[in-house]
Amino acid sequence: MGRIPIRDIEPSVENGSWAAKGTELEAFPVRATVFREGHDLFAAEAVLVDPHGNEVQTEPMVLIRPGLGRYEAWLTPTYPGAWTYFVRSYSDPIATWEHNAQARIGADTDIELVFLEAEAWMNRALTTLEAAVQSGATDADMTALKDALDVIHMERLSPTVRFEAATAAGVRTALVHAPVRDMVTESSRFPVNVDRSLALAGSWYEIFPRSHGSYQDQDGTWVSGTLATAAQDLGRIAGMGFDVVYLTPVSPIGTTNRKGRNNTLEAAPGDPGSPYAIGSADGGHDAIHPELGTFEDFDQFVASAKSYGMEVALDFALQCSPDHPWLTEHPEWFTTRADGTIAFAENPPKKYQDIYPLNFDNDPEGIYQEIVRVLEVWISHGVTIFRVDNPHTKPVQFWQRLMAQFRIEHPDILFLAEAFTAPPMMQGLGAVGFHQSYCYFAWRTEKEEIEEYLQELATESDHLLRPAFWPTTHDILTPFMQDGGKAAFELRAVLAATGAPTYGIYSGYELVENVARPGFEEQIDNEKYEFKPRNWQAGEHTGIPQLLTQLNRIRHAHPSLQRLRGIRINPTSSDQIISYTRFARPEEVAGKAGAIPEPLGGAGSPAADAVITVINLDPHNGHDAVLDLDLSPFGVTPGWAGEPLFEVTDELTGQTFLWNEHPYVSLNPGSNVAHVLSVRVISD
Amino acid sequence: MGRIPIRDIEPSVENGSWAAKGTELEAFPVRATVFREGHDLFAAEAVLVDPHGNEVQTEPMVLIRPGLGRYEAWLTPTYPGAWTYFVRSYSDPIATWEHNAQARIGADTDIELVFLEAEAWMNRALTTLEAAVQSGATDADMTALKDALDVIHMERLSPTVRFEAATAAGVRTALVHAPVRDMVTESSRFPVNVDRSLALAGSWYEIFPRSHGSYQDQDGTWVSGTLATAAQDLGRIAGMGFDVVYLTPVSPIGTTNRKGRNNTLEAAPGDPGSPYAIGSADGGHDAIHPELGTFEDFDQFVASAKSYGMEVALDFALQCSPDHPWLTEHPEWFTTRADGTIAFAENPPKKYQDIYPLNFDNDPEGIYQEIVRVLEVWISHGVTIFRVDNPHTKPVQFWQRLMAQFRIEHPDILFLAEAFTAPPMMQGLGAVGFHQSYCYFAWRTEKEEIEEYLQELATESDHLLRPAFWPTTHDILTPFMQDGGKAAFELRAVLAATGAPTYGIYSGYELVENVARPGFEEQIDNEKYEFKPRNWQAGEHTGIPQLLTQLNRIRHAHPSLQRLRGIRINPTSSDQIISYTRFARPEEVAGKAGAIPEPLGGAGSPAADAVITVINLDPHNGHDAVLDLDLSPFGVTPGWAGEPLFEVTDELTGQTFLWNEHPYVSLNPGSNVAHVLSVRVISD
Repeated sequence: MGRIPIRDIEPSVENGSWAAKGTELEAFPVRATVFREGHDLFAAEAVLVDPHGNEVQTEPMVLIRPGLGRYEAWLTPTYPGAWTYFVRSYSDPIATWEHNAQARIGADTDIELVFLEAEAWMNRALTTLEAAVQSGATDADMTALKDALDVIHMERLSPTVRFEAATAAGVRTALVHAPVRDMVTESSRFPVNVDRSLALAGSWYEIFPRSHGSYQDQDGTWVSGTLATAAQDLGRIAGMGFDVVYLTPVSPIGTTNRKGRNNTLEAAPGDPGSPYAIGSADGGHDAIHPELGTFEDFDQFVASAKSYGMEVALDFALQCSPDHPWLTEHPEWFTTRADGTIAFAENPPKKYQDIYPLNFDNDPEGIYQEIVRVLEVWISHGVTIFRVDNPHTKPVQFWQRLMAQFRIEHPDILFLAEAFTAPPMMQGLGAVGFHQSYCYFAWRTEKEEIEEYLQELATESDHLLRPAFWPTTHDILTPFMQDGGKAAFELRAVLAATGAPTYGIYSGYELVENVARPGFEEQIDNEKYEFKPRNWQAGEHTGIPQLLTQLNRIRHAHPSLQRLRGIRINPTSSDQIISYTRFARPEEVAGKAGAIPEPLGGAGSPAADAVITVINLDPHNGHDAVLDLDLSPFGVTPGWAGEPLFEVTDELTGQTFLWNEHPYVSLNPGSNVAHVLSVRVISD
Repeated sequence: MGRIPIRDIEPSVENGSWAAKGTELEAFPVRATVFREGHDLFAAEAVLVDPHGNEVQTEPMVLIRPGLGRYEAWLTPTYPGAWTYFVRSYSDPIATWEHNAQARIGADTDIELVFLEAEAWMNRALTTLEAAVQSGATDADMTALKDALDVIHMERLSPTVRFEAATAAGVRTALVHAPVRDMVTESSRFPVNVDRSLALAGSWYEIFPRSHGSYQDQDGTWVSGTLATAAQDLGRIAGMGFDVVYLTPVSPIGTTNRKGRNNTLEAAPGDPGSPYAIGSADGGHDAIHPELGTFEDFDQFVASAKSYGMEVALDFALQCSPDHPWLTEHPEWFTTRADGTIAFAENPPKKYQDIYPLNFDNDPEGIYQEIVRVLEVWISHGVTIFRVDNPHTKPVQFWQRLMAQFRIEHPDILFLAEAFTAPPMMQGLGAVGFHQSYCYFAWRTEKEEIEEYLQELATESDHLLRPAFWPTTHDILTPFMQDGGKAAFELRAVLAATGAPTYGIYSGYELVENVARPGFEEQIDNEKYEFKPRNWQAGEHTGIPQLLTQLNRIRHAHPSLQRLRGIRINPTSSDQIISYTRFARPEEVAGKAGAIPEPLGGAGSPAADAVITVINLDPHNGHDAVLDLDLSPFGVTPGWAGEPLFEVTDELTGQTFLWNEHPYVSLNPGSNVAHVLSVRVISD
């Protein structure tokens, strides 16, 4: 325990044993319980330390839970790296003096003692001030203190006048530059791994490259699309404003036990097989499927994406087809069954004979080094993001080692965990270093559960995992999406794009592909098992490409939609209409070297940028509602007689409204499923 | 992260930086989140390590929050000292085999593989068994495995028969002795400071020794009671069954600025002064007030208490009267004000000129060593408990050092913190090592808040602090006690004695002393400022001495009332009738070397001893209610047609009732304020 005790500091993972998650230019809240003995006053501040060990930001902590002594301040790291933070507490003798002085003057007792004490701390401040030029101390500070000293000595003046001199604005400024503190106590330092912004915020677009440019020739034989033909679609994708193009696996596909269309056990001639059954005579994880092209084609694909401002994410599925070279080169990397055969994937009595899982316990070092080598191959060809397939079926230990090594050797490389599993594993993978996580978003469809989930992700698990919101994937087509027609695709796109800093769209979303394989929550004629060329021009008629384009434009224009932690739920009078405000703090909006902007609601209010979203969650019926806007991000209070507080602009339609704290909204699936509103605070 | 990850282990203070609280023969719950990759089964166990480093108890952990992977087991340290515990997780290949075998046999697939796998683990178990004689392995185990091996090889038998052979009782027993585990993972070790039982459980009785035997002589002059006359009251106190007699300070009392009756600023001649204004020409904290006697008298008092089976707790109030020797010998231990005078206690504009507080920052080492010396003086005279007055006005750091040193040098010496302040300080003092804490009990008077508080103390802060329940003290007489007459004193005594393992009674409680100084929540004619001889025989007529005697007898007879963590609230149909069951686990009832008893509800149920308390919280009116008994401590289920489940005996009246899960009770202030019931489970 320090002299002024500091306890229960967050964010921390296992009390600082592992690093919490941070992102460049995203503020994070530091909270701690600070208390002390007796009646003397004290204060605390949170201090941010950059990777070089410099204390670059110090913020006074504010009491957020009176009675429980819980304090908070927000810190904003500005670039990626291994940052730390700590809490500093101290006894505040001047605040104590001020408190006591007011009480004594009020009771007309010990007046001379009051000013003898003031003289003492003023002289102490003067001494400090001489050494405090670095922290901005000026001659004016010195003068202010000396003038105040003169006044407090004048016993003929009233105690009130002398007190006012001791607490004048100039004196307070001087004390900022030359703080007078006792019993300064520092907590231990807590690590925060700060990643680049794409780890937190980005718009993703998923494709099976072989579908793009595939076709049937005259005799009905399918011809695969290639990396080269897929690259021709990059302009369209970039045109919608996406930041990341994500490719399902591009490595050779096995032929033994290859799956046929709709996950049937027997592939028909010409069936291309699942790209997740990796490995054939043409190579394994470090090779490219010959039908897709060569590494040269891959390099050109990456270069083209880059020229459009997009990064390439590659699927990384650590499993093997029966034809994978590892099976013959390294049979020891697999499980040998009691009957001497190598084990295919199995969840008895179900068998997945097209897939052989690695056994990470047989030769952990050998497997680890080989996987690092494979990742390095793709990194050398421009891949900057790996979407890791089913990381929760591999040892967490393995990922911990890999993430630690890559954070040092390749700090720009990002890993997305596709672990649709229970919270301990999902958060555990985040804790060991995955940059981003698929999450339960697709299955949260009711208003209340969405509100709770947004809140949980932003305020409870934010130091452990960064969520990616995907309305659909090639594996997931929920009943809500199957049943809700185009409006479901529209409203879930708005929810995904404004509900989390990262969202993703699986190719075909534009066409409202919502037919499921009977009995399954996934697409019929799943693209995993067949070519799926699409008519993008038909897609234009749904209006969804236009909606996605608008959403991505709004996301790029508003830092508030690129941050996880600034969210307030706005209650509404309808159980079908959800509303939330996302906001960014001034330091977050400032950018890497920019001046810190004025908050929307004026000095001291939290939000420098904000977007209010309102969505009708019912894809079948129109609803209206009165909102109960949470005003706290704006630091405004309700006006008289409902006068307007905000001018809001629907960034989807360009319409402008004057809103007070209880606006009325009406949303219809046929016309508009949502408002996405930028905000101007009307000042008096 | 270990191979089978283990996270968020409790109990722990700052992730094991400091020790959690434990008590000899009190079970504590170990909880952890355990999870793993893939589908293979795993398990976890909690392991208790004694101060010598021996693993003395291993308990399988049970999944208590499915989906969240939260596991629990209870461990019971058996004697005081620095214990640790840890969690061990492991892959369970036999459970995995069993799960898969059932699925395969059910689907009639891979039958021979199933038994090849069984053969493998059986051979492994046989090898282990040979080395496992220590853990109780016998020839029978060996035979069981070999027989099973024979059967599983018989392909002519049905798979079901072969499976049953592999999972027969004898095989399971053999596997307990020779466990087959993979990927064994151990968490780090977490410290638990285990204290002797009186740290947790005891009945206290507080006296101002000078009152006992004090009298007015013919001319009205007061004559002080002495340690010798107070000792004559020990038989009465012990007769009521108390374990601890607590003395307010016995050191010399200052005369300068001595307080008069009812806290007046001017003492009249003959006023004895507050024993909390310590120090005079007769000495300081290491001396005895001459009017009370000598160290010889003190030793005799302690010896007499001991002969009655009671320990002596001494008030330890670290503050000085203006006449304390430290003021002249060590003026540097106090605060010098800006005007050069030594600071008396003050909360401006209020002044407490009879008290000078130590300034622990001026000479921390000097003050620390002197305080250790003073404590050693009293320990050498038989004091085993210190009731520390206002520890929250001294630096927490100071207590941390003191508690750490005394835990090593005097592990039997207990410290009770009198810190009526905010939770962070209260819990902070517990965290740094105070054995026991006064708490908010006196101010919890409504049913709902009492229920919540009992729950919080038993399940949330139990690893940080041990509560002491005092219905009144010499400083506290709540409005509830002022207004509720004798019934209030009765019901709060029952609540205190059954609600927490430690409770305390302030002398005079027997006489229902409930008149407050007007405007204050404390007694009129407070004993702090005057002599207060009492007519104990008059007290007999209230019935309260008899009630206290009964309560202490019941407390001694029932381990369940001597443990903090075993509690269940029983909902009732009345907002004035509260009910709760306290219970002790078999290991807690076993005692230091006893055989572990059978639980009340038969093997596997949690409670081996239980007391159900029902109290009418309304001191003015009778109430009746139907209870909804929580059956979980007993492991019984409701019977048909409301047939009786329990025979309960009211230990206050001797009455016996047959109860089902919804008994009816009726309680009246005039006759009975409470039931305190022992429980026998009626077995079929």
